[in-house]
Amino acid sequence: MLGVFLERVRTRAPIVHCITNCVSANDTANLLLAAGASPILADEPCDAAEVSAHCDGLCLNLGMLKQYAVESMLNAGHAAAQRCHPVLLDPVGVGISSFRMETARRLLSHLPITAIRGNLSELRALSGFSSVGRGVDADFCDTVCEDTLAQTISFVKGLARKHGAVIAVTGAIDLVGNADRCFVIRNGRPEMRLVTGTGCQLSALAAAFLAANPDSTLEAVAAAVCAMGLAGEIAFSRMQPGDGNTAYRSRIIDSIYNMDAQTLERGSRYEIR
Amino acid sequence: MLGVFLERVRTRAPIVHCITNCVSANDTANLLLAAGASPILADEPCDAAEVSAHCDGLCLNLGMLKQYAVESMLNAGHAAAQRCHPVLLDPVGVGISSFRMETARRLLSHLPITAIRGNLSELRALSGFSSVGRGVDADFCDTVCEDTLAQTISFVKGLARKHGAVIAVTGAIDLVGNADRCFVIRNGRPEMRLVTGTGCQLSALAAAFLAANPDSTLEAVAAAVCAMGLAGEIAFSRMQPGDGNTAYRSRIIDSIYNMDAQTLERGSRYEIR
Amino acid sequence: MLGVFLERVRTRAPIVHCITNCVSANDTANLLLAAGASPILADEPCDAAEVSAHCDGLCLNLGMLKQYAVESMLNAGHAAAQRCHPVLLDPVGVGISSFRMETARRLLSHLPITAIRGNLSELRALSGFSSVGRGVDADFCDTVCEDTLAQTISFVKGLARKHGAVIAVTGAIDLVGNADRCFVIRNGRPEMRLVTGTGCQLSALAAAFLAANPDSTLEAVAAAVCAMGLAGEIAFSRMQPGDGNTAYRSRIIDSIYNMDAQTLERGSRYEIR
Repeated sequence: MLGVFLERVRTRAPIVHCITNCVSANDTANLLLAAGASPILADEPCDAAEVSAHCDGLCLNLGMLKQYAVESMLNAGHAAAQRCHPVLLDPVGVGISSFRMETARRLLSHLPITAIRGNLSELRALSGFSSVGRGVDADFCDTVCEDTLAQTISFVKGLARKHGAVIAVTGAIDLVGNADRCFVIRNGRPEMRLVTGTGCQLSALAAAFLAANPDSTLEAVAAAVCAMGLAGEIAFSRMQPGDGNTAYRSRIIDSIYNMDAQTLERGSRYEIR
Repeated sequence: MLGVFLERVRTRAPIVHCITNCVSANDTANLLLAAGASPILADEPCDAAEVSAHCDGLCLNLGMLKQYAVESMLNAGHAAAQRCHPVLLDPVGVGISSFRMETARRLLSHLPITAIRGNLSELRALSGFSSVGRGVDADFCDTVCEDTLAQTISFVKGLARKHGAVIAVTGAIDLVGNADRCFVIRNGRPEMRLVTGTGCQLSALAAAFLAANPDSTLEAVAAAVCAMGLAGEIAFSRMQPGDGNTAYRSRIIDSIYNMDAQTLERGSRYEIR
Repeated sequence: MLGVFLERVRTRAPIVHCITNCVSANDTANLLLAAGASPILADEPCDAAEVSAHCDGLCLNLGMLKQYAVESMLNAGHAAAQRCHPVLLDPVGVGISSFRMETARRLLSHLPITAIRGNLSELRALSGFSSVGRGVDADFCDTVCEDTLAQTISFVKGLARKHGAVIAVTGAIDLVGNADRCFVIRNGRPEMRLVTGTGCQLSALAAAFLAANPDSTLEAVAAAVCAMGLAGEIAFSRMQPGDGNTAYRSRIIDSIYNMDAQTLERGSRYEIR
C-alpha cells in the first residue's frame, strides 16, 4: 500500500524548501535528490517567502536555530500556507532551551503545521512534560518500546488532535499518527542514531512525501518513515569490514536512491492501531 | 591543450576564498583540495577583506545568501580587485527572489567580475528574461541542446561582452565563452545533477583555475568545466551495484584528486565556435 | 597507557557542545558519534548557554567565525566554566585577520580554557609571532620537524605555562604539552591535510576526550591526537585504486568508529619529553 507514495515523489518531483541546520544540510539535500525531489535551502528573512512560493512543500528544522531564521520560518510558512503547501516542523532539541521552545510554540500557533516529527523526548517536551533528552537525542526513559507502546500511541493521537497535525515519533519503534489512527512501524536499525542528522533527513523526506501526496497526509508520512527505516536496513546489509558510521551514512542515502515502490511495499513492516 | 591549466593549479596551489552556502561548503573545500588548491571560507563582513587579501582568487556564491554576506562579498571583492585576483560569481537561484537578483546586479556593477557560472535559467534571469528555473535547477525549457545551440552561443557571447567577463553556462552541453569565442563542451553525465552542489563545486574549481592561470581566463574556465565533466564520467564508470548519488558525490571529487594533465587532455571533448 | 582514555569516551558518552564552522560541522558530528560521544551544535547567543549547561564539554572553533557567535562562545564558555566542564579552543586562521585574533584573545582572557589545538602557524600567531600561515594551513616554515623539535617543545611548554592550558600543535609531528611535559607524537599521514577539516574534527574529539577524562587533561588530549593520527594510518591502508581525499575522509571517521582501546594502545607512537 505504501509504495505508491514513493512513486508519486518520483513522478511529481516536488521542490522542498528546507530551513535547517548546517550539520545536516548537505545530507538532507542529497537525500531529497535520491528520492526524486528537489531541495532548496534559504533562510534569510527577505528571501524565504519568495523562495517558498516557488516550492511545493516546506520543512522547518529547529537544529542550530538562529534568531534571524525565526522570521524566515514565519515568512516561508505563511507563503506555503497561502498556497496550501504542506509544512512540517522538526523541533530539534526543543527541550533544551527556552529559545527553541518559544519558537516551536510560536510556529505552532501562527502556522498551519501539517506534520511534526521528532524523537519522544522532543515531543514530550513540546507537550509540557519535563523530559529534555540527552542533548539532541532521546532520553533513555523516552524510548518507545513494547511495554509502553499503548500509552505512547495514546500520547501521539492526543498530540495529533491538539495540533491538528500528523505526529511522527521516531525511535526503536516509530509511530505515525493522527487523531484516529496510528502506524506502528518496525523498520530501521539502532545504528542509524550513530549517523548525524538521520532525523533531520527524515523530516525533509517526509515533507517531500507530503508535497507529492497532499491528500493522504498520514500515509505519506508513514511511507517516508518506512522508507527511511528500510533504507537503514538495506544499507546495513551492505556494510563491509572496516566500514563505520560515515560509510553507513552514504549507504542509507544510496539505498533511498535505489528504492522503488515494490521494494518499499515489500519491506515496510507496520501495523495500524 | 587544456591539461596545462590543471597542471598549474597543482604546482601553484592557489588559495581560493569562497563565500558560499553551507550545503556545498564541505564538498567545495574537498574538491579544491583534490585539485591541488587551498580553500578558505569566511563570510563575516569584518573578516572577509583581510582573508581575501591572503588569497589568490575569490568565489562568490549566492546560494543561501545572507543579508550580512552581501557586505562581505563587496569587501572581499574590493580586496581581491585591488590585487588583480580573479573574482567568479555564481548567481545560484538568481531568478527566484528579488534579494538574490538585486545582490547579483550590485556585485556586477561594483566589482570587476572575471567570470560568471550558472545554469541557463540563472543566466537568462540575470539578463532580464523571465525564466526562473525550477528551484535552483534549470527550467526544462532552459536546457542547452543541439537545436538551440547556435542561439545559446550568441547569448553567451553577448552576455560576455556586456559584463566583460567569461560566461560559463553548464547543463547537458556546457558553454564557456567570451565576446569572441565559445567553447562547446560535451563532457559530463546527466546523473551529476542528482548530486547536490556540483554546480557550486565547479564554480570554486573554476576560481582556482583562474587564480592559477590569470592570463588565460577563457581557457582556464573551460579547462575547469572539462575537468569537472570528465570527473563525472570517470566517477560514473566506477559505480558499483547499490551505489547512488552519495557514492557518486565522493567518486567525482576523488576523480579530480586522481586526474593528471594527460587524463584531462585526452578526456576533454570540446569544439570552439 | 592511552587506550583507557578512549574507553572512557565510549563508556561515559559525553555530550560535546561545538560552536564551529559549517565546512566541518557534519564531519565533526559524525566523528564524535564514531568515538562514542554525542555532538550538539548551537551558536545563537540566546541558545548557547542553556545548551552548554546540558553538555559535558565545549569546543570553540574560530573557522568562519561570525560576529554573533563571539557572544555565543562567551555565554557557552561561562556556562561550561561554572560546571567545571572542559573548554577547548581551536584558533583557526587566527593569524589572517584581526577579528579572529581579537576574538581568540578575548576568549583566552575571559574563559578558563582547558586546551588549545592548532597548527604551528596559528599558535605562533597567537603568541605574537608574525607568521600567518598559508590561508588556514600552516606556513611552510612553520612545520614541526626533527631539526626544530627541541625548540618547538620549549615553545609549547611556554605557551602552556602562559595560558594554564594544554597545548596541542599538530603537523608532521604532533606535540601535546603542559608546562612540564610534552608528548611528541609520530602518528598520522601527510595526506590527512588534503581532507578538509581534519584539524577541526580533532579539536572536537579532544574536547570529548577531555570531557570523559577530566582528571588527566594532558593524557586525554594526547590520546585524542594519537587516535586521530592512527585513524589516518588505518584509513590510508584501506584505500583502493581510484580513491581520493573524500574516500579518505570517510575512512578516517570509520577508523575511529572501529577503534578499540587495544588498537589505540598498540598503534600509538609517542615519547614524552
